[in-house]
Amino acid sequence: MNIKEGNTHMKRPLLQVALDHLDTPGALESARLLGPEVDVLEVGTLLCYAEGARAVRTVRACWPDHILLADLKAADAGGVAAELVFSAGATWMTVICSAPYPTMEAALKVAKTYGEDRDIQVELYGDWTFDHARAWLDLGLQQAVYHRGRDAQAAGKGWDESDLEKINRLVEMGIHVSVTGGLTPDDLAQFRGIPVKAFIAGRSLYGADDPVAAARAFSRSIRAGWS
Amino acid sequence: MNIKEGNTHMKRPLLQVALDHLDTPGALESARLLGPEVDVLEVGTLLCYAEGARAVRTVRACWPDHILLADLKAADAGGVAAELVFSAGATWMTVICSAPYPTMEAALKVAKTYGEDRDIQVELYGDWTFDHARAWLDLGLQQAVYHRGRDAQAAGKGWDESDLEKINRLVEMGIHVSVTGGLTPDDLAQFRGIPVKAFIAGRSLYGADDPVAAARAFSRSIRAGWS
Repeated sequence: MNIKEGNTHMKRPLLQVALDHLDTPGALESARLLGPEVDVLEVGTLLCYAEGARAVRTVRACWPDHILLADLKAADAGGVAAELVFSAGATWMTVICSAPYPTMEAALKVAKTYGEDRDIQVELYGDWTFDHARAWLDLGLQQAVYHRGRDAQAAGKGWDESDLEKINRLVEMGIHVSVTGGLTPDDLAQFRGIPVKAFIAGRSLYGADDPVAAARAFSRSIRAGWS
Repeated sequence: MNIKEGNTHMKRPLLQVALDHLDTPGALESARLLGPEVDVLEVGTLLCYAEGARAVRTVRACWPDHILLADLKAADAGGVAAELVFSAGATWMTVICSAPYPTMEAALKVAKTYGEDRDIQVELYGDWTFDHARAWLDLGLQQAVYHRGRDAQAAGKGWDESDLEKINRLVEMGIHVSVTGGLTPDDLAQFRGIPVKAFIAGRSLYGADDPVAAARAFSRSIRAGWS
């Protein structure tokens, strides 16, 4: 039902920066420039791997009002993992799509104890099916991240029709889909007509010669496609 | 071929403690007692989530000679994740079974730059198939962790024949399989005849009234089954 709503008053996709730094100070330097330009700050998987939930708490301390995603890709112990990141100030947390259903359910339950706006996103990696997606919805999970992984990118796998079809089908099922993986501002036009939850970029923002200009190019592209 | 070797001179399974603490000092308290009793120290997923690779470096500083596993369950960016934990002193690192093949391959490549004994283990979570296992072997991955997840345990899923059949089939393919998930010393008898790489226990060791005695009960059970 959210989708029908979306089709008539399609919400403009959010812009999300993935802070895929290897240490918190590096992430904060990027956030200092990019925070005012984006809707969602993401403590990337690598930063979670390097410094854990401590990084989430530190970014939250500097940016109290942003949507803050902990891209933990949790695969087990969903409840404890969620407790770690939501108590540190996360708004959203990711679980990996291959996590057992009880892990996802436990994570969502803890998320909601921190507030209705707290949420769990399912990272779509490797093999998953639309039957899984139906099961996630039945568990109460409403968000997914369609991810063209960096290793898949490096192996030369590009965006194609099958990506767009899968995203569309997830959206039609009622899932709020964020999109990531080597996106450029020019790529965004391909997604027009789809109520994407958020477009996520990492190094192409914070690694740009002019990060602010790079973020504004994404924002222009979003405004052009979702007026 | 390792398996045939295993069948004639079956190596005794290793005993591994999963330090699933939420902070490094807690893990070190447990390691102080359990280090002398076990072969493998594991920086558990939760500790990785809480404190990142920093926890690996700290445990390594205290225990220079143990096999040290970073149970990161990496799902992306295998090369960088591996660089983080192997430079911190890990011997083994886990990737999640749903990680893209290039992620696994990149992780293994980095592992081997740190030494021939460094290795990547595939965590068997959620949906995987023996076709996947064949592909892992083709990539050069030789270790997997058969995991009855804690959330699955909590949902009442026990060890059964289908677990043992799957483990046997993986071993017959040539994969070195570690086993974990709510194991008790009594459970180990079920695995007799299988050249298990390591039996992994966490809270049942460090949470026991007498952790040393608990570890020794596992060791006795291993010696009884694999003489």
